[in-house]
Amino acid sequence: MTISPLAPASFPDLPVIDGVTFAAAQAGVKYKNRTDVMLALLDAGTAIAGVFTRSATRSAPVLDCQTKLGGDPTGPAAILVNSGNSNAFTGGAGVASVAAVTSAVSSETGVPETRVFTASTGVIGEPLPHDRIVAKIAELKAGQSADGLADAAKAIMTTDTFPKGSATEIEVGGEKVRIAGIAKGSGMIAPDMATMLVYIFTDAKIDQSALQAIVSERNDQTFNCITVDSDTSTSDSLIVAATGKSGVDVTGNADFAEAVHSVMLDLAHQVVRDGEGATKFVTVSVEGAQTDADARRVALSIANSPLVKTAVAGEDANWGRVVMAIGKSGAVADRDRISIRFGDITVAQNGWRAPDYSEEATSAYMKNAELEIGVDLGIGAGSSTVWTCDLTHGYISINADYRS
Amino acid sequence: MTISPLAPASFPDLPVIDGVTFAAAQAGVKYKNRTDVMLALLDAGTAIAGVFTRSATRSAPVLDCQTKLGGDPTGPAAILVNSGNSNAFTGGAGVASVAAVTSAVSSETGVPETRVFTASTGVIGEPLPHDRIVAKIAELKAGQSADGLADAAKAIMTTDTFPKGSATEIEVGGEKVRIAGIAKGSGMIAPDMATMLVYIFTDAKIDQSALQAIVSERNDQTFNCITVDSDTSTSDSLIVAATGKSGVDVTGNADFAEAVHSVMLDLAHQVVRDGEGATKFVTVSVEGAQTDADARRVALSIANSPLVKTAVAGEDANWGRVVMAIGKSGAVADRDRISIRFGDITVAQNGWRAPDYSEEATSAYMKNAELEIGVDLGIGAGSSTVWTCDLTHGYISINADYRS
Repeated sequence: MTISPLAPASFPDLPVIDGVTFAAAQAGVKYKNRTDVMLALLDAGTAIAGVFTRSATRSAPVLDCQTKLGGDPTGPAAILVNSGNSNAFTGGAGVASVAAVTSAVSSETGVPETRVFTASTGVIGEPLPHDRIVAKIAELKAGQSADGLADAAKAIMTTDTFPKGSATEIEVGGEKVRIAGIAKGSGMIAPDMATMLVYIFTDAKIDQSALQAIVSERNDQTFNCITVDSDTSTSDSLIVAATGKSGVDVTGNADFAEAVHSVMLDLAHQVVRDGEGATKFVTVSVEGAQTDADARRVALSIANSPLVKTAVAGEDANWGRVVMAIGKSGAVADRDRISIRFGDITVAQNGWRAPDYSEEATSAYMKNAELEIGVDLGIGAGSSTVWTCDLTHGYISINADYRS
Repeated sequence: MTISPLAPASFPDLPVIDGVTFAAAQAGVKYKNRTDVMLALLDAGTAIAGVFTRSATRSAPVLDCQTKLGGDPTGPAAILVNSGNSNAFTGGAGVASVAAVTSAVSSETGVPETRVFTASTGVIGEPLPHDRIVAKIAELKAGQSADGLADAAKAIMTTDTFPKGSATEIEVGGEKVRIAGIAKGSGMIAPDMATMLVYIFTDAKIDQSALQAIVSERNDQTFNCITVDSDTSTSDSLIVAATGKSGVDVTGNADFAEAVHSVMLDLAHQVVRDGEGATKFVTVSVEGAQTDADARRVALSIANSPLVKTAVAGEDANWGRVVMAIGKSGAVADRDRISIRFGDITVAQNGWRAPDYSEEATSAYMKNAELEIGVDLGIGAGSSTVWTCDLTHGYISINADYRS
């Protein structure tokens, strides 16, 4: 598979996070000759927060994780993820598969079953051959390594063309706190609660409820602000684990929340950059709306519009389609107060084409790989930013053939 | 342009509707070597009903028509439509263009300006060169013909690959009443109030408010139940004109309402059959929902899902994507009560793959050009049916290049 032209130049150096180790293995769930299962083991006392899809048809692993969040954090914990099969819409067999994997991890590692979090990503509706995963758990236990996070990022890929990682560190009272995370996701991206699979680790010390509050708030500004194709996965899961091993208490520390936010946003952008068939990364910024909710409605209407996305693919400065997407959004708008810009070029204002509009200059701008579509509704203070990609022949090729 | 493989075998024979005449001309608004403007002239006493897009950025002609509906029906009336430019988001100049065209039609034909209904379809945001239309009005007046409706259907096409017409007749008390209509539409099809441009004519006698009631009610079951690409036009307009020339009063006649419905549904289906790049015509039927509104939510979520539509394009029996679309719809659903069928083949039931599911039989079914996706949510009596097409490379080709 060709790597997305929007991919970062290289996978980042991820720091070791004290208190967590990783391993990846080839279980052959669906893919051959590549890793497809990863196991992370977390020391006792790790606080685990998460958000999950709100889909009414969410997968068995998601339902299982949701019951476990916020439980007693005194024991060790584990995260096991497979790619190639999502174990979604698999009825009682799906529940049994989660139980089988969870039980095997617990037996092999001593982690209590209530602290084993699993996720599955891939085709929907086919029974998960969980025996293949169970057979690899001893190998995954034996292969644990503190610097195995990059391998884990590769094991959870499906239609992704590159592994996604991000890290940062901050100083709190002269002491370092490290944050590192991985994500997968490329299609079926319109997160409702979280996106696809995201795992972030930190050695910060923070209690579960404080961590959960940060994750839920920042999720609304990062993963819930991206869309590739308006389709919402049945498996979206974001888990943030704080091992506390740095000994630095970050409860109430604004820098820590910002640092978590920056890693989440970086990973969210990487998911868009790997949008199926994507050749353009598009920031849609809306301001001047009556409310933030209205601004978000307009931004998503633009970011999800097939006609806007195909125009971007064709490098066509077709701002009329942006007008259309504003109009259909359901947000309060006054046609004659709307202004639209592509990058720094104002293309429309006061309900009409800008007086000094230049087709030539705007068309030249559209050739960039990174674009911004800005809208000012001119009636209030509401604002919202979302990120998306274009809609190309590549998306059709991937999805008219791939059984995902 | 290749004609859609889903096009009807031929354009239907449309009956002459007493009380209305038509002509088409080449004004060169944008297209060359084809007709791009049509004028219909209606006798005094014609009742005119209509529905229009609810887009917040609707076009100048739509805003003008909305103020004129329901006015004094005693004088004659006119409908003038151009293709190639939608006169949407054109500010004060757009309003002036409508006024110029309306005034010229009134001067040439004697129809009061308050009874001249115009529409424009094509690129958004460019000033309408209305002088080119005004210059053709004398020719359009001179060329009026009672059997010119088929020519009018061709003149209003944009990315359409075939002209769309439909007709029926009923007997009321031994007297014939005729109904004939035309439509255009291929992309930017997710009607919110009506769709694209539709004109239906009848010689029935009925007052305006009774006609409007029929049109509004049936619109919700026809044009508002189709989607090509989830994008809503700024120009959607449906006008139904009853000349009364048959002398047959159809007020309160259920057969007449059904006959209007059948013409509307036929035209709506033809718009889907000419969906940009379409190779499959898909009926999505949802039942067992808590409410009709919930059923519609699920049906549109499936019909608008890029992943469902690309799977259909690839003839892939990927019912897992239908599960995903149900899950994201926001409708109340109980995963374990959902059943899904492709045609007569039950593919999933009780929250899992059907026990006798056959990939081979389902894949064979997907090769048909006409498909049905059926969903039973199993929790109530709400139902809804919508119609859509697949999402193909053809859609990308048309929209990454065409400035519409």
